[in-house]
Amino acid sequence: MKIKYTLLHEEKNTKARIGTIETNYGTVETPMFMPVGTRATVKMLTPEELYDLNSGVILANTYHLWLRPGEDLIEHAGGLHQFMNYHGPILTDSGGFQVFSLANPKDITEEGVYFKSHIDGSKLFLTPEKSIEIQNKLDSDIAMSFDECPPASASYEYMKNSIERTLRWAERGKKVHRNPNQSLFGIVQGGAYQDLRKFSAIETVKLDFDGYSIGGVANDGESKEDMYHAIDYAIPYLPKDKPRYLMGVGEPKDIIEGVIRGIDMFDCVLPTRIARHGNAFTSYGKLNIKNAKYKEDFTPIEEDCDCYTCKNYTKAYIRHLVNVDEALGGRLLSIHNIRFLIRLTEELRKAIKEDRLLEYQSEFYKNYH
Amino acid sequence: MKIKYTLLHEEKNTKARIGTIETNYGTVETPMFMPVGTRATVKMLTPEELYDLNSGVILANTYHLWLRPGEDLIEHAGGLHQFMNYHGPILTDSGGFQVFSLANPKDITEEGVYFKSHIDGSKLFLTPEKSIEIQNKLDSDIAMSFDECPPASASYEYMKNSIERTLRWAERGKKVHRNPNQSLFGIVQGGAYQDLRKFSAIETVKLDFDGYSIGGVANDGESKEDMYHAIDYAIPYLPKDKPRYLMGVGEPKDIIEGVIRGIDMFDCVLPTRIARHGNAFTSYGKLNIKNAKYKEDFTPIEEDCDCYTCKNYTKAYIRHLVNVDEALGGRLLSIHNIRFLIRLTEELRKAIKEDRLLEYQSEFYKNYH
Repeated sequence: MKIKYTLLHEEKNTKARIGTIETNYGTVETPMFMPVGTRATVKMLTPEELYDLNSGVILANTYHLWLRPGEDLIEHAGGLHQFMNYHGPILTDSGGFQVFSLANPKDITEEGVYFKSHIDGSKLFLTPEKSIEIQNKLDSDIAMSFDECPPASASYEYMKNSIERTLRWAERGKKVHRNPNQSLFGIVQGGAYQDLRKFSAIETVKLDFDGYSIGGVANDGESKEDMYHAIDYAIPYLPKDKPRYLMGVGEPKDIIEGVIRGIDMFDCVLPTRIARHGNAFTSYGKLNIKNAKYKEDFTPIEEDCDCYTCKNYTKAYIRHLVNVDEALGGRLLSIHNIRFLIRLTEELRKAIKEDRLLEYQSEFYKNYH
Repeated sequence: MKIKYTLLHEEKNTKARIGTIETNYGTVETPMFMPVGTRATVKMLTPEELYDLNSGVILANTYHLWLRPGEDLIEHAGGLHQFMNYHGPILTDSGGFQVFSLANPKDITEEGVYFKSHIDGSKLFLTPEKSIEIQNKLDSDIAMSFDECPPASASYEYMKNSIERTLRWAERGKKVHRNPNQSLFGIVQGGAYQDLRKFSAIETVKLDFDGYSIGGVANDGESKEDMYHAIDYAIPYLPKDKPRYLMGVGEPKDIIEGVIRGIDMFDCVLPTRIARHGNAFTSYGKLNIKNAKYKEDFTPIEEDCDCYTCKNYTKAYIRHLVNVDEALGGRLLSIHNIRFLIRLTEELRKAIKEDRLLEYQSEFYKNYH
């Protein structure tokens, strides 16, 4: 079965909305934050820990799994769910984002992209067809179209050619997509150019995907304003009855801004990445647990947080673990940080339901620095 | 309350015995294997995971905790149990084993040991009194006397002087021991010299400790024969109504040999250390999960193992995690390896109860290579 999106309520004062996505692995609520499990594991965590965090969908990376352990092995295992023992929905990206960071512009051809493996430097070639074929074998619930992801700084000319090619790639990918239990999303690009975002949205929607994502907003050096504009330019042309996914975004304020603009799905490595450096999200902003002031702080990261970490451990203990480089430290911080973002989306859904999203936003911004 | 050992049954054909140790954090059964949590964390695992493994006592290292985060901080946290949120019994070593690996023989004086910090090279001094004072503050359930731990290759003369000094240190430590909820064990040394092991055992028992351990058997380069002899030489002189602890031993066969000779307690970093290198205990011996033959092996490490890892994951998946250096791999292997040793002790207790320990041993040895 493909996914089925149901729009439940549109907020009165913004473009925000709540809905559900039915999948073969359960029904999830939107807006939602998706933890990233690049190599078939959300770093350090078990599936049970993710269920406890109320994770809806998790993300896995096609590029990484293609190289190791290979899509055939995962297919032989019975697909990604069986392989990693995760029985919730999984979304796979197309590999494009990783590939373009490893390729030179001259390596991008109409056919696909030549690039060097980040593992052994060997020459690799990825095409829209290959990306979909890999994702079909991975058997994720949602696959992404293979797209080019140019920086916002790209010229108008370059960007126009790029989105036209991305549209041809989207069509080629859709044509070879075979997995009846897997949905396929199209990706809107266009950088900071209003008419290109509009064009990309309209043309991508014409290809009729199961959902749409807005890409190119989480590249290095992208400004917040560019991100918000990219959403504003595209959203009016996306159908209301399909989910909308803002790729690679996970800063709490950006999630709120995205939701206000009509986004349903977010993903980001941020909560696990900052955890490994000793950082924790709190309603007052990020804190670094290595700070000397937490040395004898025998209170949890957040008193009112419902996560396993906050219910069981003190800042002083987590600080000690991080300071002596014990893996449990990063694990406990990852649990808290992912739960923080998922709890944020839970609160956003409640605020949307009650048509008080802007109040929630202003309250959140007052505290969060 | 101090611990209370109860001898339940002595096996008919060997010196093996089953018993219980009552502690302030529950009653545990012996013989038992104690997972090591050097820096107030059994590497990668939570307390809940340890309870699930049926861990009885865990071990923490005084030397490491003295340096970071410091015994005062842990005292302020309410002791080690509160600090690390482990609500089972904890044993702390004396620091001696770590200190002697960092000191030159000339740095050992009657007063204590001068050595260099493994963290910043700063000069440190540890005495029997200081070791006990730190352990009192850590508030473990069982503390160890501060002892010198010479290699078996030490001369008779050196060893004799050493065990005499260790006896004086044991007496000094006992004198300053203050924590009414903490038991204190004495340590028998003497290397491979039968009369010195006997002398050390008799004199240590005269000091009347809550339990006795046999040390100096897990140094680098110690032979198995030396280890078995060390136990045989000491055991006849240890009281039956106190637990006996073989320090630093965790190879499956050594646990069996120790149990047959009358040992009740074992500890070792082995299960977590080999896990981090991709190794797993099985009833057929150790396997290295990186081996190519497990690439598409979609069966658990051991079909009949009851651990979380074996109930949920395949060799192929764990191999992938280890190959791409994902922490979950080491975590899953640690869970399996600790459970393997704890399950071994469960089976040994059953075999002792049924007076068929030697049959169990020969069955185990037939498979284990």
